[in-house]
Amino acid sequence: MASRPTSSSAIPGNPADLIDFAALSLLPSWCRLPIADALRAGEPPHEVFERCAARHWPHEPDEVAAIRSKARAAADRATAQALTPIVWSDPRYPAALAAIVDPPPVLWTRGDPAACDGALVAIVGSRAASPYALSVATALATDLATRGIGVVSGLARGVDSAAHRGVLEADGVTIAVLGSGLDVVYPPEHASLASDIARRGLVVSELVPGTPPLPEFFPRRNRIISGLSRAVVVIEAGDKSGSLITARCALEQGRDVLAVPGNVLSGRNRGAHGLLRDGAKIVESADDILEELGMCRSAEASRSGSGMEREALAERRPHDPILDCLVPGEPSDLDEIAERSGLLPSRLLPRLMELELAGAVARVGGGRFVRIDRPC
Amino acid sequence: MASRPTSSSAIPGNPADLIDFAALSLLPSWCRLPIADALRAGEPPHEVFERCAARHWPHEPDEVAAIRSKARAAADRATAQALTPIVWSDPRYPAALAAIVDPPPVLWTRGDPAACDGALVAIVGSRAASPYALSVATALATDLATRGIGVVSGLARGVDSAAHRGVLEADGVTIAVLGSGLDVVYPPEHASLASDIARRGLVVSELVPGTPPLPEFFPRRNRIISGLSRAVVVIEAGDKSGSLITARCALEQGRDVLAVPGNVLSGRNRGAHGLLRDGAKIVESADDILEELGMCRSAEASRSGSGMEREALAERRPHDPILDCLVPGEPSDLDEIAERSGLLPSRLLPRLMELELAGAVARVGGGRFVRIDRPC
Repeated sequence: MASRPTSSSAIPGNPADLIDFAALSLLPSWCRLPIADALRAGEPPHEVFERCAARHWPHEPDEVAAIRSKARAAADRATAQALTPIVWSDPRYPAALAAIVDPPPVLWTRGDPAACDGALVAIVGSRAASPYALSVATALATDLATRGIGVVSGLARGVDSAAHRGVLEADGVTIAVLGSGLDVVYPPEHASLASDIARRGLVVSELVPGTPPLPEFFPRRNRIISGLSRAVVVIEAGDKSGSLITARCALEQGRDVLAVPGNVLSGRNRGAHGLLRDGAKIVESADDILEELGMCRSAEASRSGSGMEREALAERRPHDPILDCLVPGEPSDLDEIAERSGLLPSRLLPRLMELELAGAVARVGGGRFVRIDRPC
Repeated sequence: MASRPTSSSAIPGNPADLIDFAALSLLPSWCRLPIADALRAGEPPHEVFERCAARHWPHEPDEVAAIRSKARAAADRATAQALTPIVWSDPRYPAALAAIVDPPPVLWTRGDPAACDGALVAIVGSRAASPYALSVATALATDLATRGIGVVSGLARGVDSAAHRGVLEADGVTIAVLGSGLDVVYPPEHASLASDIARRGLVVSELVPGTPPLPEFFPRRNRIISGLSRAVVVIEAGDKSGSLITARCALEQGRDVLAVPGNVLSGRNRGAHGLLRDGAKIVESADDILEELGMCRSAEASRSGSGMEREALAERRPHDPILDCLVPGEPSDLDEIAERSGLLPSRLLPRLMELELAGAVARVGGGRFVRIDRPC
């Protein structure tokens, strides 16, 4: 992880240097790597901006002023819309995203920034998805959510929105990364989905509020989807699918790439099968993803393991009377846990909070708790 | 390739040592490797038989005589049924099969032994195959046949017979390896398919004529399917599929293993996906198989082929508005096809029957129809 200087002005909720960071994000594309390098080196954002702007527009002070004014307008618009901008130096800036070569200087967000704190997996795929792809996306997203894994996607039609919805149905955490400003939801029919996501997780964009969803923004948006995630799962990508861009970004960022196989006759899975051909891990179920992340007993063992192997695996996990009452992936409410454990809810709650702090259980919607499988 | 001494008695059509080889094939299973080693070392078959029989039945001359008599009866039966026995020392004995550790001492055959001379690929898979698996098996077999590759399979219901039929439709060469004597075709409803195969290729068994199709014969039969072939392609194998035995034999024999991916929700492809997980090459089309055999321009090139090539391919396929509404391998009911095509069910049904007669669609359970992909 790159070390990031925390600026004194990066107070959550009131980033004094927001306009500097926003201005940096409005500079031309060739500035991105020098900006990231300079910020990582600890240079204050306004100095980075002055230097880059002076190199690009040495004799055009009006151009530089226009960028500053655009940045100011973006900040005002964010305030008016109650967005939460998270600048690069903000402690809430997602650590995994900060580690990519060209992290966005600002993330404009709506929802809970803590959504980025847990383990995240991206699920991406076809917009014109088959019923099969939608079923798989929903099932994988739901299964990941119930095991305490957050799901990142792009709010697009098809696989993306099926994945978001699968998480929401399981009261899990999901993050949508847009290819437009946060106030210009695309596609428009997903506006209410975006609101639901903001309530249960986070909606994110590196583009200043008001930015329209131009085609050129989506390929770069994809690096944020993979950059937030530990792994990218591709479902039903054709030959030229944008999901393959996300997969390439993931590889460049050192994240795992996984793909779901499917029908070889429809032509719909050529991209996903191409990834498998190139060494992506094959995904049949959420177990395969968790196994790749080193977060559960091996999927192979769960598929074919003997009773003895299973017992041996179980023995490696610490025994806890409350954990023993929880089935991994199945949220339980306080009354159910009390009944199973024989402990009064008043005694149970402090223990559950301890387990939550230890990362052994997660709190999910409806006051329920879910056990998180530990790495084996 | 092991060197094989050609005996003066191994005259094609009249193998004088047939009874010795047949007797060797009737010895108990523990004799198989010593027999293969002795034959490879140039020991005459009757000496190998005397030695093995004396070790197994040192004081039971009647048992030994019974084996000899069974072997003689088998040879007579083969003559009566105009079978062609090919003994291990026969120059027509398939070279690839002679290279495995335990080649059958005799192959009882019907058809043209030269069928084994070209490049052969095995296609094996589920007996209770889905329409998708049948479509893929047919399409791959047809494509391989039209490129001059012979297809080996096991004459079973489902994928095996679809592969044989795909080859026959393309006037190609196919080889069926039975798990019973050549005169006891199993399953019985494939008797006429077996006759068709004998006319266009070869039907083969290591079991003497009259042997019933006992379950224990099939796993060993599978080593002949892979032993004849340069590669084994597995289509729709579940967790415990016999096709996985064929795949394991192929690996032990140093042959390539390939697998066709499919639906991850049905559970039908767990075995095939397991093979992919273990490093089997993924097959979407015959190109992938030929590429693995080093026999064609790279599948990658043909996949990303120029627009002109694709147009040329597309032009060879007839366009049909109803076919265009059907995804190969995915059954659709009348209402779904009506909705997609915009045609009334009353107008649709006669057209679907025409397409069925033309072999372009098949009727599957629940009044649904599935498109059958034609070779391009």
